[in-house]
Amino acid sequence: VGSVWGIVVAAGAGSRFGGAKQFAPLGTGRVVDWAVVATAGACDGVVLVLPPDVPWDGVPVAAVVAGGATRAESVRAGLAAVPAEAVIIVVHDAARPLAPPGLFQAVVEAVAAGADGALPAIPVTDTLKRTEGDRVLATVPRAGLVAAQTPQAFRADVLRRAHAGVVDATDDAALVEAVGGSVVVVPGAQANMKLTTGSDLAMAAALLEWAAKS
Amino acid sequence: VGSVWGIVVAAGAGSRFGGAKQFAPLGTGRVVDWAVVATAGACDGVVLVLPPDVPWDGVPVAAVVAGGATRAESVRAGLAAVPAEAVIIVVHDAARPLAPPGLFQAVVEAVAAGADGALPAIPVTDTLKRTEGDRVLATVPRAGLVAAQTPQAFRADVLRRAHAGVVDATDDAALVEAVGGSVVVVPGAQANMKLTTGSDLAMAAALLEWAAKS
Repeated sequence: VGSVWGIVVAAGAGSRFGGAKQFAPLGTGRVVDWAVVATAGACDGVVLVLPPDVPWDGVPVAAVVAGGATRAESVRAGLAAVPAEAVIIVVHDAARPLAPPGLFQAVVEAVAAGADGALPAIPVTDTLKRTEGDRVLATVPRAGLVAAQTPQAFRADVLRRAHAGVVDATDDAALVEAVGGSVVVVPGAQANMKLTTGSDLAMAAALLEWAAKS
Repeated sequence: VGSVWGIVVAAGAGSRFGGAKQFAPLGTGRVVDWAVVATAGACDGVVLVLPPDVPWDGVPVAAVVAGGATRAESVRAGLAAVPAEAVIIVVHDAARPLAPPGLFQAVVEAVAAGADGALPAIPVTDTLKRTEGDRVLATVPRAGLVAAQTPQAFRADVLRRAHAGVVDATDDAALVEAVGGSVVVVPGAQANMKLTTGSDLAMAAALLEWAAKS
């Protein structure tokens, strides 16, 4: 496979969450600790992107860098600290503390097998509507529609090229798609939820307990 | 407003869930009990749609009917038991046990104010991809995209007309949209989650506890 490096994006301010959710306690650690440990298990080195001026006192990582104003800027800050010898780069959101180890392996393997990028995704189970103001314009056909998760793995050169622009996007795969890269999906995990609201944290804690009992 | 009736759809087999999730215990009752009580609080009468041959031993309802092979068939079975004097009909999925009372009021009021239909919706926070097999074709623009929930309220005559066809859909609003009805959205609730997998039940229980503490 070659050298695999990870970038954990933990620079968000968590405006919907009402605080920096990535530092909230979860089980025996903090949210961000779970994300870093999971990423480290699959990578030769981890670059952690934190909000500016936040010190790091968790498990050792190869580098800690300050994030930017947007998600893409934060990833770019992380990319700058990933050594040139990295062949595959895995980007993971700290807001997804419960990503199982198998997900990291699956996306890395998909890239090693030839894709430019790979991401875990789960089927969309909600009915989606396109709206304008409070009016429903249409129901969005759900066939082939999936919800993307992280970790997302990429060929390092393709990810760097995708980030050379100045655009923002809600995930890195969208940037790689925009430069014509081939991206594949692997089966995601329902438990790999993104913490967005305060109640999500309670749900994540319940999932941890549920998983321990199952 | 006139007579408001509710239909609680609890006829699903729960194949993803690994059992009939609507009868799973949740807090002090079963999932379906929460949904029926919430609906009853906002309606003059409730029609409960159950799987065939499942007896009902919960709180009193106006009628219990057997569901069909699809969601839409189950709603139609419920519609047949709603009295002709009903002016507004509220359809609610038993798989959403934690719908707050305010949601029922909000959708009923939106229909009373002139819409043919109203549904609660929350912003889509996931990045959505259109796929073919395991290949990502595109990232779906998220602007204006919302995830629909139940309860959904409708002018009774419009809902009956929408269901006169033989089509299926993932929600009733889609049928009303298909016959040209005007549908509006009201702010949904994050806690109004749909129970799909076994771990969702653990999360719903955690939400109940979290809400009690908040």
